[in-house]
Amino acid sequence: MQDLNAVMFQAAQAFKKYRNFSGKQKAIFLRAIAEEIEVIGRELIDIAMQETNLPEGRLIGERGRTIFQLKMFADLLDEGSWVEARIDSANLSRQPIPKVDIRKMLVPMGTVAVFGASNFPFAYSTAGGDTASALAAGCPVVVKGHPAHARTSAMVAEAIFRAAERTGMPQGVFAHLDGGEGFEIGNALVMHPETEGVGFTGSFGGGKALYDLANKRVDPIPVFSEMGSVNPVILMPEKLKQEAENVAMICANSITLGVGQFCTNPGLIFGIENQDLERFLRVLSAEIEKISPSTMLNEGIFKNYEDKKTIALSQEGVKTESVSKIEKTAQTQGMPTIASVSADIFLKNPKLHQEVFGPYSLVIKCKDEAQLLEALSHLEGQLTATLMATENELQANEELVDTLKNLSGRLNFNNVPTGVEVCFAMQHGGPFPACTDARFTSVGPDSIKRWVRPASYQSFPDTLLPDELKHNNPLNIWRMVDNAFVK
Amino acid sequence: MQDLNAVMFQAAQAFKKYRNFSGKQKAIFLRAIAEEIEVIGRELIDIAMQETNLPEGRLIGERGRTIFQLKMFADLLDEGSWVEARIDSANLSRQPIPKVDIRKMLVPMGTVAVFGASNFPFAYSTAGGDTASALAAGCPVVVKGHPAHARTSAMVAEAIFRAAERTGMPQGVFAHLDGGEGFEIGNALVMHPETEGVGFTGSFGGGKALYDLANKRVDPIPVFSEMGSVNPVILMPEKLKQEAENVAMICANSITLGVGQFCTNPGLIFGIENQDLERFLRVLSAEIEKISPSTMLNEGIFKNYEDKKTIALSQEGVKTESVSKIEKTAQTQGMPTIASVSADIFLKNPKLHQEVFGPYSLVIKCKDEAQLLEALSHLEGQLTATLMATENELQANEELVDTLKNLSGRLNFNNVPTGVEVCFAMQHGGPFPACTDARFTSVGPDSIKRWVRPASYQSFPDTLLPDELKHNNPLNIWRMVDNAFVK
Repeated sequence: MQDLNAVMFQAAQAFKKYRNFSGKQKAIFLRAIAEEIEVIGRELIDIAMQETNLPEGRLIGERGRTIFQLKMFADLLDEGSWVEARIDSANLSRQPIPKVDIRKMLVPMGTVAVFGASNFPFAYSTAGGDTASALAAGCPVVVKGHPAHARTSAMVAEAIFRAAERTGMPQGVFAHLDGGEGFEIGNALVMHPETEGVGFTGSFGGGKALYDLANKRVDPIPVFSEMGSVNPVILMPEKLKQEAENVAMICANSITLGVGQFCTNPGLIFGIENQDLERFLRVLSAEIEKISPSTMLNEGIFKNYEDKKTIALSQEGVKTESVSKIEKTAQTQGMPTIASVSADIFLKNPKLHQEVFGPYSLVIKCKDEAQLLEALSHLEGQLTATLMATENELQANEELVDTLKNLSGRLNFNNVPTGVEVCFAMQHGGPFPACTDARFTSVGPDSIKRWVRPASYQSFPDTLLPDELKHNNPLNIWRMVDNAFVK
Repeated sequence: MQDLNAVMFQAAQAFKKYRNFSGKQKAIFLRAIAEEIEVIGRELIDIAMQETNLPEGRLIGERGRTIFQLKMFADLLDEGSWVEARIDSANLSRQPIPKVDIRKMLVPMGTVAVFGASNFPFAYSTAGGDTASALAAGCPVVVKGHPAHARTSAMVAEAIFRAAERTGMPQGVFAHLDGGEGFEIGNALVMHPETEGVGFTGSFGGGKALYDLANKRVDPIPVFSEMGSVNPVILMPEKLKQEAENVAMICANSITLGVGQFCTNPGLIFGIENQDLERFLRVLSAEIEKISPSTMLNEGIFKNYEDKKTIALSQEGVKTESVSKIEKTAQTQGMPTIASVSADIFLKNPKLHQEVFGPYSLVIKCKDEAQLLEALSHLEGQLTATLMATENELQANEELVDTLKNLSGRLNFNNVPTGVEVCFAMQHGGPFPACTDARFTSVGPDSIKRWVRPASYQSFPDTLLPDELKHNNPLNIWRMVDNAFVK
């Protein structure tokens, strides 16, 4: 681990400088990373296609998203209000004791370790949301390259190195560890005394293991693991009566998008047993039969899909409703598959509550709304929950809506859960086991808050305060001054 | 644990209603708690005096602070902007895919367990900051009454019950467990599946034990333990040259305030060896000799003070500089004591870095500024750090100031660390071991953020959104709408 120690020492040295860089300086760095990634051009897409089996269009789109995220954080830094500056002025005549001047802002915590996701080689990987948010916060980043796209990761890392160098960033502000398939280097990174935070996107097994490992440290550090989710979809009767066909087609698309390899993939669909639900199932099945199997990210993920799906389908009372009728053209293609089960059985069998990562969904037939509510009360925390309902049904089912709200990070209405907008209002996270700290998001500008802590200055002379806290507000940012938001 | 299960079940039932109460409704509840505490009047102060040995004036002041905190959170709820509403409007013409409408706000997490502090029977206990912030957030609260002020705690709990009843709060929104001296009930509370967060104020041993215990849960929950701190004070040479006497008198007061029983008590004082530091030490010693010993909170805390102090004073190279010359009038009075040691020895002996909870401080004599920096680099995370310096010295010692900033939650300039203002700009927390999550404060309005998570609504009809997120902003709160702060 001599190498890791050297990397972490250099990151700690970089932090001493980088934490005091202005927002504008950090923004230049982030924009340079975006540029350097773009400059690689075609080669990056080609390598990523080879390593991940993802189609060209998807990868070009994901690269665009990655560049957008970097620029979004640069804009956030340029604007500057994200530091949540708070100023409470002195009041020397206050009784019984004078009030001192106190000012507070968010400051970076230290080196952040990033573990990227296999299903997003760009946007949730080496220069993805975790790295961009941590660098924006003022934290050095050490990325453990994902073995499933090692060359892609190394190429993006090189782009970050070039950007750091040409924008005058301190050496060590970014590092890339190529640890291969094993856990050794990743575990050592989580346990290293200089690591002050961990960002992970991936499976429940991986995310929870890193979280548990970090709990063995002497000093607690924040570990934000964004993990699996079954993203329940609830079909209300009146909605199905009106448009079962349309809802079924929307669901079929969402279930099979990206070969089902999204953490927001709808894995459980709840409906109330009646002829409209049967209509929905018929259309959904017909759609699924027409959708081509596609190659999954890698053999491990394909095998995991087959195993989990086989377990689910072999449970007592589970009926396979439909499987794609289009033949596979390669071994590791995932077959779109729909199954169904009664809520009676679902309620008794926790194996059916688990995520099957791939183009698979289980329809749960409830006897009535009471049983639907009961089934939902057995679910664990979710990234998303989706309600397919008329507005009247939404209004009339307060308890159901409230249950879904409390269960998930994002509640959709007549909309698919796949597709995560990168914006301020996005919550990508949710109650455990969707992630390890529901108080934060891993997507959007607010994801920067995972890597910062508030720091107060008491009775500091104005000239020696950071610009964010100076009396005349030289950065022209929004601040809370004596209990009022002002600019 | 049958009783605990019943309490937690009732809290969970209360949460289903309480989480949907408006800010104004919750504000009425918080103000009613403040009123009910005031109504108890003299009796509450008398009981608290008997249980804690704290003087009347201090307890009256602390009750005032507690009432102020409750009203502060009521004001926060009435104003309403604390929910961090973010709105990203739909853009149906966006290419390649339309942008959906997404809105986000902070929502409560669930039942919060509160463990109060022995040294603040009101402000950090039953109706203190943790309880007030959690109730303001919309979370039910279960308090484990502190055995050192069990009757005080029970009386305050009764006030909360009366307030809940007369303002129509759901039964179970607040509960008080009288678990006696043992850990059994507290541990069971932390491990209970319905517990969604823990607030603790007290010793490192207690706070870390609860944190470690919670890590054995199946589901991770946030544990905010605000623990010990030695609150380093750094004396710069020019400052001492100008006013060693004044600085010494300020320090003597801060060290002995409340018999040193504050988590912000200055336990380590660093200076550079020269005649001005000797002048400082002479005046500090003379002041300490004149300060009366006072009765400590309880026998356990007195014994702990004696034990820790004895260990510190018996370390090689530690010199006792001064002890109060005023005789004790009761057995459990803590004697104000000052010791000194060379930085050479301090650096080699971690026992000297530890908190001695009581009216004790250790002066560390450094050879030069380089050794001062080295000594500081050996310190762990702190609630506060204090710099006694001229403005020139502050400006000329960038590395030193930066080190202190990175070490602590609050950096004071020519000001004592004791005295924690309850205001927006206050950070009371800091890098471990000062607390278990430096990203939050336990004092001030922002402490509400410990108990909330963001929740997004995607494509929701306006009429069915919470008021905070409706198009026409009926609550007239500050919101981030399409990347701009507006009201």
